[in-house]
Amino acid sequence: MAEYDTVAIVGVGLIGGSIGLALRERGLAREVVGIGRGASRSTDPNHVGPPRRTSSLDAALKRGAIDRATTDLAAGVANANVVVICTPVDTVVRYLVSVAASCPKDTLITDAGSTKEAIVTAADAAMASHRAGPRFVGSHPIAGDHRGGPDFSRSDLFEGRAIVVTPTNHTRPAAVTEVSGFWESLGGKVTTMSPAEHDQALAMTSHLPHLIASALAASTPRELLPLTAGGWRDATRVAAGDPSLWLPIFASNRQAVLEALGRFDLQLSAMREMLEQADDQRLLESLEGAAARKAQRDTLGD
Amino acid sequence: MAEYDTVAIVGVGLIGGSIGLALRERGLAREVVGIGRGASRSTDPNHVGPPRRTSSLDAALKRGAIDRATTDLAAGVANANVVVICTPVDTVVRYLVSVAASCPKDTLITDAGSTKEAIVTAADAAMASHRAGPRFVGSHPIAGDHRGGPDFSRSDLFEGRAIVVTPTNHTRPAAVTEVSGFWESLGGKVTTMSPAEHDQALAMTSHLPHLIASALAASTPRELLPLTAGGWRDATRVAAGDPSLWLPIFASNRQAVLEALGRFDLQLSAMREMLEQADDQRLLESLEGAAARKAQRDTLGD
Repeated sequence: MAEYDTVAIVGVGLIGGSIGLALRERGLAREVVGIGRGASRSTDPNHVGPPRRTSSLDAALKRGAIDRATTDLAAGVANANVVVICTPVDTVVRYLVSVAASCPKDTLITDAGSTKEAIVTAADAAMASHRAGPRFVGSHPIAGDHRGGPDFSRSDLFEGRAIVVTPTNHTRPAAVTEVSGFWESLGGKVTTMSPAEHDQALAMTSHLPHLIASALAASTPRELLPLTAGGWRDATRVAAGDPSLWLPIFASNRQAVLEALGRFDLQLSAMREMLEQADDQRLLESLEGAAARKAQRDTLGD
Repeated sequence: MAEYDTVAIVGVGLIGGSIGLALRERGLAREVVGIGRGASRSTDPNHVGPPRRTSSLDAALKRGAIDRATTDLAAGVANANVVVICTPVDTVVRYLVSVAASCPKDTLITDAGSTKEAIVTAADAAMASHRAGPRFVGSHPIAGDHRGGPDFSRSDLFEGRAIVVTPTNHTRPAAVTEVSGFWESLGGKVTTMSPAEHDQALAMTSHLPHLIASALAASTPRELLPLTAGGWRDATRVAAGDPSLWLPIFASNRQAVLEALGRFDLQLSAMREMLEQADDQRLLESLEGAAARKAQRDTLGD
């Protein structure tokens, strides 16, 4: 028997699509409902022929990530036991309010946003009027791909990956257990921390790398691109990520990103000084320290 | 009939091994000789059993990258038409002097070092006594892997990749043509520029990314490593490269790396200011500019 009767996913991009694939492949839900905005039609008045973009919903259906697609959020969550909101971070709370107004009273709601404090604070305020109703706990699966959309979703995206669940003083312990169980059923390894602690950590491990990769890509003169190879390509890879998804991540985590940037700057400035002063011994030690940190990460697995 | 009778490769790591594999797979040389230092034996007095590291020469032979291995440099280059020195940048000139003293008078010598001005200047001085003898032209194939050693060598490593050849006022044009022809026979796309121009370009496209990746890896607290994912992994990947190979690269290109770092710093400081001032419009434009630069690189192929 399936673990869940109905799971609704709001926003079936890479993360939402992968949740759906994992649920369906593992036989965890009787029905996975995908909720989206429908087909985007071209607004170019000169455009003739079929729409240039098919909707994420169509792609998710085709990929087998969802059983049923709807653009009607209220109908989509009407029977959901679990709702996962996988939309850009600046829209999560807006969808949460709509979901909470339409889902059953015992529904468990979570999200997959890359920043947590802004979302969880606003969510707590919004859910205060639903004390006996649906419960919300914030989550963030530390998994992804710089290529977005359901076409890149994978049923094993969460296997062995860290999933951060971020309860607050308002969160009922049973809801934390249930949300943790949900992610564990998809193969994730759940860690619990406060939203602020999460945002500080992720500023360093995810948001700062994105900022640095973007600065490196943007500062490379176009005429030198033919002289780049694997090193530049890897170091700048995440800069290809969708700017419209990343801007709200930075905007909702400014202070922590600035602090992480300060930490990076100290290290880079020290290395600059070693170069300036031809202090090869210390530079070698720094390069060795960096290689050792990489090796420590590798021992943790994928 | 093979293009070359004998090609000698001094240092059969990733690059040297890949040159050998490419020559042999394409039937370009009657014989490929690999020259190295022989097996490294453990110096641990408590170590029993077989040597812990087999030599690069053994690995290269096993991989089919060379026909014959020798640790005797003079004997290895005695009949060579072409010698390619693929050792760390701070040892290239030392090997060049030994090669020039032992190879035939009409031999063409090149290298594969990641910095060129220091090597080519010292090489010009060293070769001044060989006016009627072997010719040296500096080269740098813009191809590689953060994983070193002949085990990762590939016969297609140079296919479609930029190869920079760096003649000086002392270089005979025929030698440039011959060296260019050698790399083209391995599938490379040859570009000619001055050693200084090369070093400035590569400071930006290769050495700076390595420095930044290392600073990012080193500044990430160990306890946060479990919360890193693909973004951090890609952005820091090159930091796993062998510090003993990278230190001499930085040491021989300090000024250009510092200039590239200044360029990166301007961009990163601008983005920091956008974060501080919550200037989301400009931050979005910066992220878009970075993503566009990535896309421009992608259109150039691998």
